[in-house]
Amino acid sequence: MGSNDDKKSYKSPVYVHNPHLDKLKDDVLYHFNLGTATHDLPAIFGNVKFVCVGGSPWRMKSFIEYIAAELGLEDPKSEYPNICAGTDRYAMYKVGPVLSVSHGMGIPSISIMLHELIKLLHHAHCTDVTIFRIGTSGGIGLEPGTVVVTKQSVDATFLPKFEQVILGQTVVRSTDLDQGLTEELLQCSKELNQFETVIANTMCTMDFYEGQARLDGAFCSYSEKDKQDYLAKAYEAGVRNIEMESSVFAAMCKLSGLQAAVVCVTLLDRLKGDQLISSHEVLRSYQQRPQILVGDFIKKQLSAAGRT
Amino acid sequence: MGSNDDKKSYKSPVYVHNPHLDKLKDDVLYHFNLGTATHDLPAIFGNVKFVCVGGSPWRMKSFIEYIAAELGLEDPKSEYPNICAGTDRYAMYKVGPVLSVSHGMGIPSISIMLHELIKLLHHAHCTDVTIFRIGTSGGIGLEPGTVVVTKQSVDATFLPKFEQVILGQTVVRSTDLDQGLTEELLQCSKELNQFETVIANTMCTMDFYEGQARLDGAFCSYSEKDKQDYLAKAYEAGVRNIEMESSVFAAMCKLSGLQAAVVCVTLLDRLKGDQLISSHEVLRSYQQRPQILVGDFIKKQLSAAGRT
Repeated sequence: MGSNDDKKSYKSPVYVHNPHLDKLKDDVLYHFNLGTATHDLPAIFGNVKFVCVGGSPWRMKSFIEYIAAELGLEDPKSEYPNICAGTDRYAMYKVGPVLSVSHGMGIPSISIMLHELIKLLHHAHCTDVTIFRIGTSGGIGLEPGTVVVTKQSVDATFLPKFEQVILGQTVVRSTDLDQGLTEELLQCSKELNQFETVIANTMCTMDFYEGQARLDGAFCSYSEKDKQDYLAKAYEAGVRNIEMESSVFAAMCKLSGLQAAVVCVTLLDRLKGDQLISSHEVLRSYQQRPQILVGDFIKKQLSAAGRT
Repeated sequence: MGSNDDKKSYKSPVYVHNPHLDKLKDDVLYHFNLGTATHDLPAIFGNVKFVCVGGSPWRMKSFIEYIAAELGLEDPKSEYPNICAGTDRYAMYKVGPVLSVSHGMGIPSISIMLHELIKLLHHAHCTDVTIFRIGTSGGIGLEPGTVVVTKQSVDATFLPKFEQVILGQTVVRSTDLDQGLTEELLQCSKELNQFETVIANTMCTMDFYEGQARLDGAFCSYSEKDKQDYLAKAYEAGVRNIEMESSVFAAMCKLSGLQAAVVCVTLLDRLKGDQLISSHEVLRSYQQRPQILVGDFIKKQLSAAGRT
């Protein structure tokens, strides 16, 4: 792998905003089972330029196999060890400049992972890192299988903000994403021409059932009409899909200087139902679409930088 | 396994509160990879009387092995298949009347699992079910390794409530737990006499770093004194440990008529530090304590009911 120093006059680091970190003798990244005293983080991770994160550990392993093949970086044994094998909290895989990490489901789970990932990239002196969340979602008024690249991540009242509680006080953080990156991904999808991709707002909720107006949870106190009215309001606010991690992902990546995008496929149209009743084969093929799009983007970027 | 019909005049079912469920032809429990059309839920789960849930899939597998040995119900091959093997979202194990399920980290992750677990127990016609969350936590002013049985689960402002967003509106739910069960667990621990157990309030946060006043996250905008002042206020409010799932667990179990307790070991004293620097062996032995306590309780209950 060459450096792309000559292509850019300025290298953008991964920022932490914590003066206390300098006072730590060692930093234990507990939920990764990694640490500065036990691992040579710059040697292992220093060349990372792209990070892909997603909920499911299986999907993140499948992504590293896919991107390795795409980039011609296959391991001759085709084995990609889980770098976090010492814990079952998250799974992590790496090939060349690409890191793939699982984050579980929901804002708190991805938030723990991102704190430790941002510290990892900082300790490893990584620069110019682009990060993608590749996930699944429920669509609103879209054909199932459509990929949504998030314009703005909005909350359950359709506002583009993430509320972080610090010492019992609520602090509001921006959920802005990189619009240039978003447009580049859309362009990439047009060139691929394999599936529909749109740029739209994504609603990020704290819950899969009541929080997303589903009628099929253990508890439901509203009617079908209430549900449809709520989803219609979301649609009017530009929301085309619903998931559970984008807001804190956008907020934390922005704070740390990571160029970030959210790329989620819609598994169903929530205007027509709540349950995932498509066959496993169909759902599996849908789930590959964000991988294919982001894989193609990474391949083009590395090719343009003369790095493959 | 005999029935305990003769011991009780009334059998308490597991409630769902959702009139729409009756209209569903089939119910797909998507994140378990189970469903009413594909699985005979009453046959598989109808005898469940105790459910243990915890964040880590590995720990929940270790619990089922432990409880099987305690109850003399070991599989001769000592193999406990993951009932949710078709998905990587959660892991589920069963032996006799005991079900063990992982829930990942944070409120949204456990909330998805509980919606589907409550529906599963309902579809299986289970009655008189007791549920435990066995977990890890940060302690406040306790010797590491102390087990806390939760009296009340409180939020980051020390109030005993859980805020559920429904159709964009916030609904406040009670986080009351079963005080009789809590006392019985304390009594059980006294008889065991293997480790310290206390009844105290548990603070449930949305985040492991800033939300718990840690100084070692990627971001930290407060001082060591701010942290200590916040933890001191928590201590004054009766809080002795901090974790990330108890509030929604308490709220949802209460709504569904499940007798519930939260039993978490403290891995460190947050007044003295933020990082988990104890050896893996020590941390592992601490993590077994909630299993030992709940295992002993279940054994005594089954013995008293003449069911072992």
